[in-house]
Amino acid sequence: MGKIILTGDRPTGRLHVGHYVGSLKRRVELQNSGEFDEIYIMIADAQALTDNADNPEKVRQNIIEVALDYLACGLDPEKSVLFIQSQIPELCEMTFYYMDLVTVSRLQRNPTVKSEIQMRNFEASIPVGFFTYPISQAADITAFKATTVPVGEDQAPMIEQTREIVHKFNSVYGETLVEPDILLPDNKACLRLPGIDGKAKMSKSLGNCIYLSDTEDEVKKKIMSMFTDPNHLRVEDPGRVEGNPVFIYLDAFCRDEHFAKYLPDYRNLDELKAHYTRGGLGDVKVKRFLNSVLQEELEPIRQRRKEIAKDIPAVYRILEEGSKKARAKASETLADMKRAMKINYFEDMELIEEQARRFNAEA
Amino acid sequence: MGKIILTGDRPTGRLHVGHYVGSLKRRVELQNSGEFDEIYIMIADAQALTDNADNPEKVRQNIIEVALDYLACGLDPEKSVLFIQSQIPELCEMTFYYMDLVTVSRLQRNPTVKSEIQMRNFEASIPVGFFTYPISQAADITAFKATTVPVGEDQAPMIEQTREIVHKFNSVYGETLVEPDILLPDNKACLRLPGIDGKAKMSKSLGNCIYLSDTEDEVKKKIMSMFTDPNHLRVEDPGRVEGNPVFIYLDAFCRDEHFAKYLPDYRNLDELKAHYTRGGLGDVKVKRFLNSVLQEELEPIRQRRKEIAKDIPAVYRILEEGSKKARAKASETLADMKRAMKINYFEDMELIEEQARRFNAEA
Repeated sequence: MGKIILTGDRPTGRLHVGHYVGSLKRRVELQNSGEFDEIYIMIADAQALTDNADNPEKVRQNIIEVALDYLACGLDPEKSVLFIQSQIPELCEMTFYYMDLVTVSRLQRNPTVKSEIQMRNFEASIPVGFFTYPISQAADITAFKATTVPVGEDQAPMIEQTREIVHKFNSVYGETLVEPDILLPDNKACLRLPGIDGKAKMSKSLGNCIYLSDTEDEVKKKIMSMFTDPNHLRVEDPGRVEGNPVFIYLDAFCRDEHFAKYLPDYRNLDELKAHYTRGGLGDVKVKRFLNSVLQEELEPIRQRRKEIAKDIPAVYRILEEGSKKARAKASETLADMKRAMKINYFEDMELIEEQARRFNAEA
Repeated sequence: MGKIILTGDRPTGRLHVGHYVGSLKRRVELQNSGEFDEIYIMIADAQALTDNADNPEKVRQNIIEVALDYLACGLDPEKSVLFIQSQIPELCEMTFYYMDLVTVSRLQRNPTVKSEIQMRNFEASIPVGFFTYPISQAADITAFKATTVPVGEDQAPMIEQTREIVHKFNSVYGETLVEPDILLPDNKACLRLPGIDGKAKMSKSLGNCIYLSDTEDEVKKKIMSMFTDPNHLRVEDPGRVEGNPVFIYLDAFCRDEHFAKYLPDYRNLDELKAHYTRGGLGDVKVKRFLNSVLQEELEPIRQRRKEIAKDIPAVYRILEEGSKKARAKASETLADMKRAMKINYFEDMELIEEQARRFNAEA
């Protein structure tokens, strides 16, 4: 059995540098590693609707943005199947049957769901679709018989839920589904970038994200306005690098060669941090350096994005083609499931003939 | 817009006289009334799986039993679409999207779900599929644009939930779905028959049901063993007719002409009840009368059932044909829904062209 990846994003906005270092960059590396037989990248519009049911336009408009970000970052439709979740009806059918294999109290214990509910201030008014989304994710993963799900640590409970469902399904109906493994990021700095305002999470509504599609000027402006150490008032003051967004971003993006190129007074990030910590290094200098580093990384992405955006219908064709491929695979898995569950009555000659014999014997 | 019926049963066992007086008999009358443009009768296997996920064989074996009961009672595939729920994948997709329109706390307040959970001793370990089945029922009803759902009073909260979902969907996405009305039984006696042991509910596991497919001998034996008034020990004792299963069954089944035919000492049920109440009328005599009445009603059903069971593959063909018809209708409704939700991206030229213009203007 081959190695198969399933991963994706909710299309509720353009992707930002947090997405990039947290998953997108690695995803492209995995794609190009040649280690995987099939790679499925899902634009999770149906999942986005679970808490945006009354604003479908937001989801609808952002599918193309996410697709452009994907292609700009180097996801290649020749190597990865890029598809839209809602175009695979089989996922709903799987979700429907998996719901019989999970209890309500098990869902309530899911820490990811718990914290997401808190984050969204849902409390008593959680949409059922949102509450049950770990089950829907299990469908997304198992539909493609994914072996490998590259996500952050915070998603571990979701993968665990999928494994439980697979285990339950296989033990009730016979060996059918594949238990996936989580593939955690190998670089700690990549786990999560804070917003430019220092808030733990980047969020469109807080306006604290640097987007992959931001122009050079926008990126520069955002970096120069970044929150740093609030006690680092004068250049000569000692500064803190821990929890300082500028340094967290440098941790994620800068390499030694960037110093030779843009800031030759230092050999590496450790030297820069040491200077900042003991005092005498101004924020503006560090921010300018971060700007150079980040622009170098983002410029080619930005250019590719612009190029690709010249032919929007072609991007939709890529997604349509990918959705067809994804659907063919999901549809195979669903057929396997239905055979295992024996709910494929009309093609089940054994059932029909056995019952015919029984009723004739009774008559 | 025409009048459309949707109703059905869970295939967890053969149907009994409780199903017959509670819904099946009326359903046949409605079918033959000519008042309805479309009639959909669903064998709800997927719903049965919500609390029988680990015993799919029970569900699988009972589909044919329910289908035979349907046909034997006079449901006519020329007039009613008989179909199997799991064969209509569109229902899962609708359920999936409706889940975004209902909150968890709303489901928790559903009195039918509450009492069913209690009845099944689920408490903390309710399967999610069972917990959410009012949403799945909303899909069943709305998929066929049903105007009329003939069910008992106890199902009123389910129809209310469906109406809420329709209302929410239509107000968020635009007028698409049809709000159904409940059609309550017109005869009080028909609401619910107790078991032959006097327990409120007939249940296979309690062995207290008279099945439509029971033989003449089985029916007689069950009637003669029926629970009556436990204080009516000697013939001369006064007896109670209220809560007495034998009289509840007579309420449901006997007509004045049955007295002329089988018990000419009385003109009608009121006279029989009066005699029983004042004392001097033995249980055996009343039970024999009930047996005559019930056998007269069941004999033709039993004969038709036997006849139809001679060709089991033909019954599956009826269900397959019905499922095809049902699927065509559900699929139309789903397409309407997706257009309303605007998640039909690849055929949405307006979306693609508008975005193409916007990106070209930005470039």
